[in-house]
Amino acid sequence: MQINSLEELIKILSKLPGLGPRSAKRAALYFIKSPEIMIGLSNTLKKVSDEIKTCDHCGNIDITSPCNICSDNTRDKNIICVVEHIGDLWAIEKGKVYKGLYHVLGGTLSALDNRSPKDLNISNLSNRIKNNNITEVIIATNATLEGETTGHYVAKLIEPLKTKITRLAHGIPVGAELDYVDEGTLSFALQLRQNF
Amino acid sequence: MQINSLEELIKILSKLPGLGPRSAKRAALYFIKSPEIMIGLSNTLKKVSDEIKTCDHCGNIDITSPCNICSDNTRDKNIICVVEHIGDLWAIEKGKVYKGLYHVLGGTLSALDNRSPKDLNISNLSNRIKNNNITEVIIATNATLEGETTGHYVAKLIEPLKTKITRLAHGIPVGAELDYVDEGTLSFALQLRQNF
Repeated sequence: MQINSLEELIKILSKLPGLGPRSAKRAALYFIKSPEIMIGLSNTLKKVSDEIKTCDHCGNIDITSPCNICSDNTRDKNIICVVEHIGDLWAIEKGKVYKGLYHVLGGTLSALDNRSPKDLNISNLSNRIKNNNITEVIIATNATLEGETTGHYVAKLIEPLKTKITRLAHGIPVGAELDYVDEGTLSFALQLRQNF
Repeated sequence: MQINSLEELIKILSKLPGLGPRSAKRAALYFIKSPEIMIGLSNTLKKVSDEIKTCDHCGNIDITSPCNICSDNTRDKNIICVVEHIGDLWAIEKGKVYKGLYHVLGGTLSALDNRSPKDLNISNLSNRIKNNNITEVIIATNATLEGETTGHYVAKLIEPLKTKITRLAHGIPVGAELDYVDEGTLSFALQLRQNF
């Protein structure tokens, strides 16, 4: 194989999360077999790149800024849910329970990977809380070490504003068998037990 | 999420071999975080789609037809290796042992998936053999049920031409432990045993 453009394609594809060099090659051959999909993807990538904007308020992505969540007047504008990634926002939206606003940090703090607060979308969070009469901030970072660290950092940062700060409950996942749940989760579930 | 272009992107990505809906979403978010990669991939796909041609002789892909293998005068033009996919051709080329020509079928016969000989690049194989003084045809379809079936079909088809027809040897893969090799492979390896 001495086709530069094809090698370039395989190189880019192999960098995608979930694809390695071998599956990138398979994906490239799949494109060659289906040229209409190749052109479709090329155009769609261009379109997404042209259209997508990051919301100045919350860090969500949309075709407009402010995004459709920030500009939706039926939502509760006094509550902000802080998440790490846009994928987390999507996950919460899918549940259709939460009706407030979001704040997407765009990652976590990490000493190991050299990510400090200035790498996160965090500087305007305090201003959002102060200027918009926010009554509650839900910290919904992931239940990982880095997520917890980042959550604590955010909580510490906004503590002086005296807004109510809450976090997602730990507990047994729906459908899980106790035998497979780790002890940390189990002890949280016991401590937070509810009336039947 | 109500961004049509982004949903379209996720839909296309989720069809790639190796990616499901969840990893397609992750890949899309990866693109959004790295717009230059998104544009790069878009341009590269366009370029590949513009450049890549299927070789009229052997079914290989290249930026020219005949491909660089068919037009390479240092190669042995009297021997054809029949493979299922371009990926198989690449795998053999990587070994740098084979110096003849190829014939890429573009798939296998499959009653289950309704693929008949007319779906394969097979019609001009007999003519290639007749008109180019081919002395040997190596059947290098995969060692799967469908690969074997297709190999037998090809052998039957070209049998009247009285060309020598060979196939890849079955045996123990290099580096394998006998304990992990299936019995079919082991009995082939025993039957084809060689002098030490």
